[in-house]
Amino acid sequence: MALTEDTPIRVGLLGAGTVGSQTARLLVEQKDELAQRIGRPIELSGVACLDPDEVDFPWIDKSLLTSDTMSVVRGADIVVELIGGTGVARTFVLAALEQGSSVVTANKALLAKYGAELYKAAADHDADIYFEAAVGGAIPIVRPLRESLVGDQVESMLGIVNGTTNYILDEMTTKGLDFDVVLREAQAKGYAEADPTGDIEGHDAANKAAIMATLAYHTNVTIDDVTVEGITHIEAADIAAATAEGKVIKLLAVVDRNDSGVSARVYPALIRQEHPLASVHESFNAIFLKAKYADDLMFYGRGAGGAPTASAVVGDIVTVARHIAAHTTGPQISTYNDLPIAPLSSEKASFAVRFMIHDKPGVLYKVAKVFADHGVSINGINQDLERSKTDPGYDGELQQLRLTTHETDEETLRATLADVFELDCVAGGPSILRVID
Amino acid sequence: MALTEDTPIRVGLLGAGTVGSQTARLLVEQKDELAQRIGRPIELSGVACLDPDEVDFPWIDKSLLTSDTMSVVRGADIVVELIGGTGVARTFVLAALEQGSSVVTANKALLAKYGAELYKAAADHDADIYFEAAVGGAIPIVRPLRESLVGDQVESMLGIVNGTTNYILDEMTTKGLDFDVVLREAQAKGYAEADPTGDIEGHDAANKAAIMATLAYHTNVTIDDVTVEGITHIEAADIAAATAEGKVIKLLAVVDRNDSGVSARVYPALIRQEHPLASVHESFNAIFLKAKYADDLMFYGRGAGGAPTASAVVGDIVTVARHIAAHTTGPQISTYNDLPIAPLSSEKASFAVRFMIHDKPGVLYKVAKVFADHGVSINGINQDLERSKTDPGYDGELQQLRLTTHETDEETLRATLADVFELDCVAGGPSILRVID
Repeated sequence: MALTEDTPIRVGLLGAGTVGSQTARLLVEQKDELAQRIGRPIELSGVACLDPDEVDFPWIDKSLLTSDTMSVVRGADIVVELIGGTGVARTFVLAALEQGSSVVTANKALLAKYGAELYKAAADHDADIYFEAAVGGAIPIVRPLRESLVGDQVESMLGIVNGTTNYILDEMTTKGLDFDVVLREAQAKGYAEADPTGDIEGHDAANKAAIMATLAYHTNVTIDDVTVEGITHIEAADIAAATAEGKVIKLLAVVDRNDSGVSARVYPALIRQEHPLASVHESFNAIFLKAKYADDLMFYGRGAGGAPTASAVVGDIVTVARHIAAHTTGPQISTYNDLPIAPLSSEKASFAVRFMIHDKPGVLYKVAKVFADHGVSINGINQDLERSKTDPGYDGELQQLRLTTHETDEETLRATLADVFELDCVAGGPSILRVID
Repeated sequence: MALTEDTPIRVGLLGAGTVGSQTARLLVEQKDELAQRIGRPIELSGVACLDPDEVDFPWIDKSLLTSDTMSVVRGADIVVELIGGTGVARTFVLAALEQGSSVVTANKALLAKYGAELYKAAADHDADIYFEAAVGGAIPIVRPLRESLVGDQVESMLGIVNGTTNYILDEMTTKGLDFDVVLREAQAKGYAEADPTGDIEGHDAANKAAIMATLAYHTNVTIDDVTVEGITHIEAADIAAATAEGKVIKLLAVVDRNDSGVSARVYPALIRQEHPLASVHESFNAIFLKAKYADDLMFYGRGAGGAPTASAVVGDIVTVARHIAAHTTGPQISTYNDLPIAPLSSEKASFAVRFMIHDKPGVLYKVAKVFADHGVSINGINQDLERSKTDPGYDGELQQLRLTTHETDEETLRATLADVFELDCVAGGPSILRVID
């Protein structure tokens, strides 16, 4: 492509950590190739970091480093926000948009909390805000939702969008180990952080679920709208029960729509081994999507890591730079639908329930009667002595009862189980997992 | 989004077959929603078809139908070419671009043959040419290559891009049936056409390979540059041998780059059952991509069918309409790299070879010596009497020999096998399959 203009488009980086340094590297090392792809050169105009003396990468000119973040914002046509969090990041992103600069960010927490405000600021000031890296890392999912599927209707999305928890569940499945053991291993190997709360409690996935729901349904969904259940309660016995039934457990971000509105949820669920998401191993991410016309789609790849995330960030930088070169912007993030958030009670699902029973005559009858009284119908039941013997809680008398319900809502199921646990033949707390068809 | 302008953008459809009628339906039924997403209304301005009296869909206004294709081209801001083939389709697409209208097409054969000419015409007349549906149907792969991965370097792509052959190979694998039997079944069920040549000989996949290579490496690759091998020679015994080794056979479009240039090939290959492509069943398509920074990515979905293809076409129509509303165009298809096509001899691969031997002392030694003389090293060997007994060609004396080579090139391998087949202890023709790591 012939260059349309020689003046470089200035890119200001906020943050010089793992992703920031890799982003700088891609921009500098591929400078000529990117100029060809954009039609105009781009240049790194500044890199904001906490301590310029501590940052040392051969591809970052020392003179570009500064701790004065606002000066980098002011001197950039494209501001790349890689600070993270919902504090100063918001200030700098807003400042960038308000001066008419475009923004590229990987900050899922910021978008899940303040997305509506930022999308409006971008539209008001004719600027772009792009964030492919915020969901699924290197996996193109934001752009397909904004553009490829824009002529279709998204029906639902199931996302494995947190690599740490997928790694933990995958290790538990392949090695038969308990959650705590695998978590410690994952921390030792650097797959899980010293404080893993954000990952294992599902909060990281919840931020992504909010963004996915906003894009899929053209409506504003924030982190506060997402119900979240993590994986800390998953036991080796749950994994064993899943394996016995030809299923795997995955932590899913689930985005859906029913007559009551939109829902975005994070929970561990059972899926069939034949489902495309079941073969997403290790720390890989994948998003499985059903659309009215396109039918099933799946997007798979690296959900995190310096280079993969930088690849997505630089893809966005090039897209935004092309818009600047053409004196235009991309499509706005539209939230014109303004849909309500569906209450938990409006959602039907099939559940797998596992608990211990005293093996006496009439137990099954009593349990089944409580389910029947609540109108919850049972799809399958399995009383498994062999397996319960290997359960740490087995006292020589208890047996494990596993059952799967037909579709019901979570409130009704919990009320049913409360009554089941009034029975003297039932012991311990239940394990409850949703089953994905 | 507030509408920026009331004048509708006129969409002219060329072709009212399966995809054309579904495209019209999506445009008409989602009219208001699409106007919101574009910021300007769009309207179906004409539908060209061979015989207007034969076309009858409730959502297509009869007055829009005409057999005068050029009149539809002239009256449209966006021309949607769904005629197919490389004849008149080229004429109409060129006419559209030359009058400054943008083009959306699903025509892989046209792009694989005349892509360079059409991309240039689009650039010369400030028009868009979009073709998401031409590769992988509903799967967003063209847009990720044009935009998401534009800041990265694509290293290689492996695509299951033909649903008919994937269905046939999947049926052969799960049911243990022979090619001919499954093909007849597939034809009876409508999964394969009455004349299945284009699918089973790999020509359809080859068109897609040419397009994938052009986009991945920013260079011009045409259908004439693609070497093609179909699946008609795959026998039940090949599938059985693959299964025994924990592998599956898939027809792949393989796009790659080495020091000698770019290569685009179509061939059936063995892949490990753990590879994400191995679990692509039935008529689904998937493209597996390795990029320098993003690492592994996979895109999965429906590669054909009226509604899925229409979903991709309408996604492109909306994108192009947004550009028209913003008085701009998307990025051009750039072929600035102008890379040579790598000769077959420059490509190394591991091969799985299967042939029959007379089970006499010294056979293995003789075969191994020929391989050693040609410098082809053997990675694994398997002489399997049980299996050969079930082979239709088993005469009570012949045994099946399966071996896998280390990396070599196809020419050397074929020269080696020619000499192997000079030995009197070897019988029949060999089955040769590439092995994907």
